[in-house]
Amino acid sequence: MRVGIVGGSGYTGGELLRLLCMHPKVEVTYVTSRRYAGKFIGDVHPNLRKLVNIKFEEYDVTLASEKCDYVFMAVPHRSSMKLTPDLLDVGLKVIDLSADFRLKDKVAYEKYYGGHERPELLEEAVYGLPELHREELRGARLVACPGCIAVSAILGAAPIVASFSIDPERIVVDAKIGSSAAGREATESTHHPERVGVVRPYKVTGHRHTAEIEQELSMVTGRQVKVALSAHSIDMVRGILSTIHFFLDELPEEKDVWRAFRAFYGNEPFVRIVKQKTGLYRLPNPKAVVGSNFCDVGFELDPHASRLVVLSALDNLVKGAAGQAVQCMNVMEGWDEALGLNAPSIFP
Amino acid sequence: MRVGIVGGSGYTGGELLRLLCMHPKVEVTYVTSRRYAGKFIGDVHPNLRKLVNIKFEEYDVTLASEKCDYVFMAVPHRSSMKLTPDLLDVGLKVIDLSADFRLKDKVAYEKYYGGHERPELLEEAVYGLPELHREELRGARLVACPGCIAVSAILGAAPIVASFSIDPERIVVDAKIGSSAAGREATESTHHPERVGVVRPYKVTGHRHTAEIEQELSMVTGRQVKVALSAHSIDMVRGILSTIHFFLDELPEEKDVWRAFRAFYGNEPFVRIVKQKTGLYRLPNPKAVVGSNFCDVGFELDPHASRLVVLSALDNLVKGAAGQAVQCMNVMEGWDEALGLNAPSIFP
Amino acid sequence: MRVGIVGGSGYTGGELLRLLCMHPKVEVTYVTSRRYAGKFIGDVHPNLRKLVNIKFEEYDVTLASEKCDYVFMAVPHRSSMKLTPDLLDVGLKVIDLSADFRLKDKVAYEKYYGGHERPELLEEAVYGLPELHREELRGARLVACPGCIAVSAILGAAPIVASFSIDPERIVVDAKIGSSAAGREATESTHHPERVGVVRPYKVTGHRHTAEIEQELSMVTGRQVKVALSAHSIDMVRGILSTIHFFLDELPEEKDVWRAFRAFYGNEPFVRIVKQKTGLYRLPNPKAVVGSNFCDVGFELDPHASRLVVLSALDNLVKGAAGQAVQCMNVMEGWDEALGLNAPSIFP
Amino acid sequence: MRVGIVGGSGYTGGELLRLLCMHPKVEVTYVTSRRYAGKFIGDVHPNLRKLVNIKFEEYDVTLASEKCDYVFMAVPHRSSMKLTPDLLDVGLKVIDLSADFRLKDKVAYEKYYGGHERPELLEEAVYGLPELHREELRGARLVACPGCIAVSAILGAAPIVASFSIDPERIVVDAKIGSSAAGREATESTHHPERVGVVRPYKVTGHRHTAEIEQELSMVTGRQVKVALSAHSIDMVRGILSTIHFFLDELPEEKDVWRAFRAFYGNEPFVRIVKQKTGLYRLPNPKAVVGSNFCDVGFELDPHASRLVVLSALDNLVKGAAGQAVQCMNVMEGWDEALGLNAPSIFP
Repeated sequence: MRVGIVGGSGYTGGELLRLLCMHPKVEVTYVTSRRYAGKFIGDVHPNLRKLVNIKFEEYDVTLASEKCDYVFMAVPHRSSMKLTPDLLDVGLKVIDLSADFRLKDKVAYEKYYGGHERPELLEEAVYGLPELHREELRGARLVACPGCIAVSAILGAAPIVASFSIDPERIVVDAKIGSSAAGREATESTHHPERVGVVRPYKVTGHRHTAEIEQELSMVTGRQVKVALSAHSIDMVRGILSTIHFFLDELPEEKDVWRAFRAFYGNEPFVRIVKQKTGLYRLPNPKAVVGSNFCDVGFELDPHASRLVVLSALDNLVKGAAGQAVQCMNVMEGWDEALGLNAPSIFP
Repeated sequence: MRVGIVGGSGYTGGELLRLLCMHPKVEVTYVTSRRYAGKFIGDVHPNLRKLVNIKFEEYDVTLASEKCDYVFMAVPHRSSMKLTPDLLDVGLKVIDLSADFRLKDKVAYEKYYGGHERPELLEEAVYGLPELHREELRGARLVACPGCIAVSAILGAAPIVASFSIDPERIVVDAKIGSSAAGREATESTHHPERVGVVRPYKVTGHRHTAEIEQELSMVTGRQVKVALSAHSIDMVRGILSTIHFFLDELPEEKDVWRAFRAFYGNEPFVRIVKQKTGLYRLPNPKAVVGSNFCDVGFELDPHASRLVVLSALDNLVKGAAGQAVQCMNVMEGWDEALGLNAPSIFP
Repeated sequence: MRVGIVGGSGYTGGELLRLLCMHPKVEVTYVTSRRYAGKFIGDVHPNLRKLVNIKFEEYDVTLASEKCDYVFMAVPHRSSMKLTPDLLDVGLKVIDLSADFRLKDKVAYEKYYGGHERPELLEEAVYGLPELHREELRGARLVACPGCIAVSAILGAAPIVASFSIDPERIVVDAKIGSSAAGREATESTHHPERVGVVRPYKVTGHRHTAEIEQELSMVTGRQVKVALSAHSIDMVRGILSTIHFFLDELPEEKDVWRAFRAFYGNEPFVRIVKQKTGLYRLPNPKAVVGSNFCDVGFELDPHASRLVVLSALDNLVKGAAGQAVQCMNVMEGWDEALGLNAPSIFP
Repeated sequence: MRVGIVGGSGYTGGELLRLLCMHPKVEVTYVTSRRYAGKFIGDVHPNLRKLVNIKFEEYDVTLASEKCDYVFMAVPHRSSMKLTPDLLDVGLKVIDLSADFRLKDKVAYEKYYGGHERPELLEEAVYGLPELHREELRGARLVACPGCIAVSAILGAAPIVASFSIDPERIVVDAKIGSSAAGREATESTHHPERVGVVRPYKVTGHRHTAEIEQELSMVTGRQVKVALSAHSIDMVRGILSTIHFFLDELPEEKDVWRAFRAFYGNEPFVRIVKQKTGLYRLPNPKAVVGSNFCDVGFELDPHASRLVVLSALDNLVKGAAGQAVQCMNVMEGWDEALGLNAPSIFP
C-alpha cells in the first residue's frame, strides 16, 4: 500500500518513517516538508541514511492523491483541520496525529484549542485507540490518534473506572514526560543546559489532554469522571510515566484488580500487565518500552490511604504517536495488528 | 567549635564536609569511616582535595569526646540508635541524620524500621526542621534531621493544612527523586545503564517517610491527616520535587494561598516562594536549588478538579540532609542561621 | 536454524536475543544463565517480555549439542576458552564474543589477558569483521568477534593506512565510550551518581584492544603499525566514538580520501560514509547509530597540523558486539548479510 | 570595591554573579542586559533568587563609570572590542571574557575572528592566566581571559613543553566539552533530544582556540609549537576534559614528569596534580571540579607508543571563564588570590 506523510521532518514524522520502512505491506511514497523539500530524508533523520532513499517534497493535495492511498498527518493542530478535509475529499484515508479531531465535543475543543473550522468531522472521526475503538476503526476514513499522555492515562485508568467504585472526582494523573514530546523545534525550555537535571512542572493544571482523557473514561464508565492532571518535564528524551492515584471507600483485593486488567487487556498485542514481586522492572517504567509500541500497565494497593495506584508507561513517539497510528492502520486494513511493530525496545 | 562526623565517607558525610569546610565558626576535627580509616578525605571525596586535609579515623566514643563538641551522625538507621546514646552520655551534642529519632511514636517506628532499642530518647529528640521547631532546637541536645522527601513534603504542605479545609484523607504526594538519595553503595538499581532514562516507581505505597510527614502535618493542623505518598526514581543525581495534590470542597482564592505561604515563610532564610506568571523557572524545580540549602515552594489552583497543587523542590543532600543539619546547628548555637550556607546553587 | 546463547543474561546476551527474535531464519532454542536458570527471559530483559517466551537454562554441552546448530558465546574472556573447544568437538559452530580467540599471536594474548589454554585454536579462528574477512568467514567453524573499540578503530583507520603514507608510529585513537560497555554488573564506576557528568579517562594507556587493532591494521597495510589508544568513559549508555588522528608529511586531497573510503566501503551494507558540509549530523556520532548495526565513518583534513582526522561511530552492543555476531552468522550461512539487522537506529 | 558586569544574562554573566556574591571585598553595583533591563536578576538566574537583589540595567558607559571601579565584559567577541576602549578611557579596569584581546598577533586574530578594530590594545592586554602571567596581571588595566578549552590545554601542556623534548608538530589536544560552553541561546545543536547521548565532533579542525594555545605554549617553550586540536560536544552541562597526546623520541621517567608538574604548580592555589594508583578519580575528570575554580592535571606514560598523555579537567564556566576572571581581579588587586573562590565542587 502506498502511504504518505504530511509533515515528515519532525520527530513524529521521523518515527513514522522509521516504523513504516520496516512494515512489510507498505511503501512510503510521499513525504512532505516545507523546510526541507528537495532534501534527502536521511539528511534530516540521520538514523534513516541508507534505509530511506527518497526526498522530501512540497505539500500538494493532488500529488498526495496521485501518490498515496493513505496519509498520516504529522502537522501541528489547527493545521490539520485545514488540510485534512481536502484529503478526505479526494478519497484518501487519513490518520491524523494532531489534536484536531480527537474531541467529540466542539465546545471542549474550543476551550482548549480555539474555534474549530470543521466541526462536522468531529462526529465521524474515530478516536485512534484500538484497545477501546477497534471495531469502529475497521472501515474508518478519518482516525484521530490520541495525545501521548492521554494514551498512557486512558490505558492505565480504563480497567479501573470500568470495574471499581472509585471516587470519580479525585483521580490524580501525575505525568512525567521526556523532551521529545516538545517537538523538534529548539526552544528555551529544551535547551540542554536548562533541561538536564530538571523536574519542571510545566502544566500543573489545565493540560489539554484532560479533555480527551475525560471523554474516553466517561465513555468507558458511563458517567462523567473528572481528571486532575499535572505534567512534569524531566531529563529523559523518550517516554512517559503516568502515575494515577484513585481513592476508593473500599479497596478491592489484589486479585480483583488483576482480573480487571486481564479482562481488559488479556488479548491485546501491545498492552503488557507488569506487576512482579521483585526486580528492578517489577512495575511499568518507560525504560522498558522505549522504541517499542508497548504500553506497560501495573498497580499497587495502598490500604493506609485507601488508594489504588496505577502506573502506565509508554514511548510518547511510538505508542503515544507513530506506533499507535501504524497500529490503527493495521486495524483499518484488517492486517495483523502487529505488522511492522514487532521490534522490541532497545535495552538498556 | 570542634565538630565530628560519624560515617564520613558516604554522600551525606561528604556533603557535611563540603559545607562545614566553608563554615566560619566550625572546625572539623574528627571524621570516621571503617572502610577508609587512615586515608585522606580527598581520596574519597575528590571535590575536597586540597581543601580538607585530614584523614578518616576509626570510630571511638572516647576519641569523639576528646576531639569534638558536636557530632553529626551520618550512619544508617539502626546504627545510630546504638551509637548515639553513648555520645550523649559523654556530653556531646548530637545531630542525627538517620531515621532513628524522627518519630515520637515508637509503634510507628517499629512498623517501618523494626523495634527501637532506646525508645526513651524519642521523646527528647527534636525534629530538626527549623521552620517548625526553631524554639525547641535552641538548647536541644539531640536533633533528628528529617528524611529528604519528608522535608519537601512537609514544607510544601504545612501552610496549606494549617490554613485551608482540605480533604485530610486525600493528600497525594507524588515525589520524583535523584539517585544520590540511594547512597554511595553501587547497586543494581543505580547501575548507570539501568538508571538512565528511567522513571522507576520504587516505592509506590508504604514509603517510610509517610510516618514523619503525617506526624508533622498532624501537629500543624491539630488533627490526624493521612498522606498518600508515592516515590519515583528518575534520571537525576541530586534533587527532589514533590507534587502535592490537595482536594477542597471550596477552592480558596489565589491571594489567600499566597498569604498562607507568606505567613509561614515570610522570614525564613531558606524557603523561597516561587510562583511567577512566566518563565522557565516560574515554579519550583530542583534545578534551581541543587547544591544550595533552599527549599522552593509554589502552587497552582485547579478549579476544574477542585484541586490545589503545591510544588516543593530541594536538594536531597543539602536541605534534605547535610544543609538542614548545619542549619539546625546554627540554630542550636544561636548563630546566624545561614552561616556556612550562603553559597548559591550552581546553575545551569 | 536453531541457535543457542551461552551467557544470555548480560547486555550482550540480551542484545543477541533482541536481534535474533527479529531474524527470519533463526530460532533461539537455548539460552544459558547460571544465575537465572529457570527464570523467564523477560524477567531479566524487560524489553523482551511477551516477545521471547522461553526460560534460561543451565549450561550443558550435551544439551547445547542437542538443541542447537550454532552457539553464540557471550561469556567473559577466559571462560570462553574453557567452553568453546567442547562445543566445537560436538560439531557446533561457535561465534565467540569474548576476547579469547581474537589474537593470532599467543604472546600478545598472554601479555594482555594471561596464558592461553588452547592456543592451537588461535590459528583457526576467523576474526569476525566481515569488512576485512568476509571470505574466510564463509565456511568458518569458529569466529572471534572483535572488541567494540577495535571495530570502530579498525573500520575508521583501515582505508587510511591502506592508502596513504601516514606516520605509522603516531596514530592516536581517542575513544569515548558508553557505560553499557562495562557490562551488567553494578560497580562503583558505573554507580549513577558517579557516572553522570563525567569524562573519566579509564584506560589512557595499555588498553587491551590495542593488540587486535594493530594486528588488523598491520595486516591491511602490510607493515607493523603502532596505535596510541586512550579510552574515556562518558555519560552515555550506548555508543563509541573513536577520533583517530593521523599525521602525514604530505596531506592528501579531500577527494582522494573520499576515494579511499569508497573503495573500501562502497558496497558494505553496514558502513556509512558520513561527511557533509553542514548539519548537526554532518560527521559520525553515536547518536545516529544507536540500536542499529551501522558503523558511520567520516573524516576531516587539517592542513595546519598536517593531520588527517577520522571519526568512527557505532553502538558497542550492536556493531560492536551482538549485531556484528549476527552479521558474521549471515555471512557464514551465505544468507543476505543484513537479515535481522534492518531495523534503523532509534532517533532521537 | 564596586564591580560591574556588562552582559549579565548569559551563563558567564550568571556565573560571575554567583561567585561575586560570595566575594568578601566586592559589591556588584551594575549589571547590564539589553533583553532583561528592568527585570530582577533572580528572574533570569533562578539560583540567585533571594541572594542577589538588584535589577538588570541598560548598558551606558557613563553609568558604568559612575557605578563601578571594575568591569567584567561578558559579551560576545567583536562586541567587546567596540565597548572596551571607552570603558578604559573613563578610567575603569576591564576584565574581558571574550576572545577580543587574547591574541598578541592581529593577523592571527583576523584569521579566526575577522579584522580587529582596536589592534593597538592587543599589545597592552594581559592574557589572563595567572599561572603564566601573574606578574603582568598586577597593575594591568586590561585583561583578556583565555578561552575555556585554551585554559585546559595550556595548563595541561605547559609543564611538558617546558621540560621535555616532545615532537612540537605532533601535539594532539582531544577535547570533550559540555553544553554550557555553547551559551544560553537555544539552538538546534543544544536541543535536548539532539544533545542527549551524543559525542558530536563539532570542531575537528580549525578551532579558534588553537591560536591562543599555540601563542602561550610557544612563549613557554621559546619555539614555535603546533597544536592539533579537535573538540567534541558531549552529553554533559559543565566541564571540559582535554586529553593531550605528546610523542617523544625518548620517554622521560615518571618521576621526572611529576617533577615538571610540581615545579610548575607546586604553589598554585587552583591547579591540582591528580595522579593516583587506584580509585575512580585517580586521574582528572570534570566531575571532581564542577562548580569550583580548580584545574586538575595528571598524566600517564605509554612506552608502547612512545607517548606521554596529559589529562586536564576544569569547569568551563569557572576556571574556564568567570572564576578565572575573579582570580585575575584578586591578583590585580593584590588580594588573596583565592578570595571568593574557596567553595568546593559539588559532588556527586
